[in-house]
Amino acid sequence: MNGLVAVDWGTSSLRAALLDERGQVVDEHSMPRGILTVAAGEFPQVLEAATARWPQRQGMLCLLSGMVGSRQGWIEAPYCPCPAGFPEIAAKLAWIEAGRAAIVPGICCETQGVPDVMRGEETQVFGALSLLGLRAGRLVLPGTHSKWVRASAGRIESFATFMTGEIYALLRRHSILARTLPDADGELDPGAFEQGFRHALRIGNLLQAAFSARTLSLFERLPAELGPSYLSGLVIGEELRSQHLSTGDGPVIVVGSPALAQRYELGLRLLGVPATAVGSQATWRGLWSLARNLEEIA
Amino acid sequence: MNGLVAVDWGTSSLRAALLDERGQVVDEHSMPRGILTVAAGEFPQVLEAATARWPQRQGMLCLLSGMVGSRQGWIEAPYCPCPAGFPEIAAKLAWIEAGRAAIVPGICCETQGVPDVMRGEETQVFGALSLLGLRAGRLVLPGTHSKWVRASAGRIESFATFMTGEIYALLRRHSILARTLPDADGELDPGAFEQGFRHALRIGNLLQAAFSARTLSLFERLPAELGPSYLSGLVIGEELRSQHLSTGDGPVIVVGSPALAQRYELGLRLLGVPATAVGSQATWRGLWSLARNLEEIA
Repeated sequence: MNGLVAVDWGTSSLRAALLDERGQVVDEHSMPRGILTVAAGEFPQVLEAATARWPQRQGMLCLLSGMVGSRQGWIEAPYCPCPAGFPEIAAKLAWIEAGRAAIVPGICCETQGVPDVMRGEETQVFGALSLLGLRAGRLVLPGTHSKWVRASAGRIESFATFMTGEIYALLRRHSILARTLPDADGELDPGAFEQGFRHALRIGNLLQAAFSARTLSLFERLPAELGPSYLSGLVIGEELRSQHLSTGDGPVIVVGSPALAQRYELGLRLLGVPATAVGSQATWRGLWSLARNLEEIA
Repeated sequence: MNGLVAVDWGTSSLRAALLDERGQVVDEHSMPRGILTVAAGEFPQVLEAATARWPQRQGMLCLLSGMVGSRQGWIEAPYCPCPAGFPEIAAKLAWIEAGRAAIVPGICCETQGVPDVMRGEETQVFGALSLLGLRAGRLVLPGTHSKWVRASAGRIESFATFMTGEIYALLRRHSILARTLPDADGELDPGAFEQGFRHALRIGNLLQAAFSARTLSLFERLPAELGPSYLSGLVIGEELRSQHLSTGDGPVIVVGSPALAQRYELGLRLLGVPATAVGSQATWRGLWSLARNLEEIA
């Protein structure tokens, strides 16, 4: 392989990287050109602007993952059903330019009659497994919509979405709880995080547990500046509660930014479950692994 | 007793009623003068304006319940701890004018180290029990913050708050789910309500279950106009899930507006639990019962 132009194109930003023939990141940068800022028909120019700094891109494959493949993106890359590994993903690539540039499809699964979807995270999952030298595992990708994933034999078997980040933000900024919370989040306070986390586990229902952030403040048992950490522990506790984790399961692989991964690692530690963190390089490794797999098929 | 001037003074509105010597409502009206619209010091004038139409009020007791007794209200009526019945409430009345006008205190309870509070709903609970000729029961008061209450021997033993109405509104209007929901709620669709209700019970976690409103719409399995009913079933299902109701427990008493009570009755029916609905007259009966009790004490 010549190298790869790898693009992670989401709703609010675009990240691009140039990888050399061994898959090492030579250069990387990001632009505030998420798909919501791009008019229909303008996608080719934005990609050109994002990669023009690399003259050597001309002879290289370009792979794009993320919301760029959604209905609101460049072209829609239909979801690939689970179980999904490289062969299934490769067969569903949405080629922008035949043999030269393609968008990675998202994946979907069905649980008890209800569909679930991810787009972009599948690439991070494959990358994280590759970075760790694994073909199976349990992973969490925290965020606005957290994904919990089970992989085996190099394929994503099933997954589930939790609206944790979004509901945290709504409670934090727009609910009655916001009235007793400070404007700035401040540093994470591990004690307050643990207090919220344990309360969520004890109550087992966010609709009820969340009100404690109000009453603890009302009764002056939770200083305002610790409120955001308490609430963060509460929603992450609620998310982890449903995973039925046990210490014998092996480590959970946490894929995400250090700030958010730290909170999930803290939560997992409170449950006695080991964690392994993988950072943002997971996307580049995922696209690289897919590219190599395409070459083997060809 | 001469009769009673009864006032239900909440955050966003004020309702007042004139009750005759037998506790019957002679006249009733409401004003958009919730406590958030009233400046400090302006409360006496607003009460005067709300009751001036009844010259006979001069010789009557006036009892007020609701957020008017909160820190942001007229004067703070400190919470009465559970178990709380008429004697405990009477001892904690916050008198505005000795022997003439008083604010009913809210009540508080403590569950596993975390406090919970209500203000105004305690009056509705006593009123509902009185209207039904009961001194014990399990009640739900649906709303922005739903209250589940256990009463026995004429006292509120314990209760719990669920932020159901508020989180519904946040999801409905401000989350990603809003993107595929119509602007107007429309009529309740019992089928879509049941579908959401059962999904909440199956999943057992709102953070996960809520995302189904997005994916069902994405896969065109839930028409947009049924989305609000589905989401309503989802959050009410999540609330009812935690009540561990069984058919042998006797009916749940649902206290609230007919539109909201109807949804809870539907949910309870899906669980095979009987329900008894009590409407807005519960507040007047509650204040009347308290007034009579004060007279007996005096």
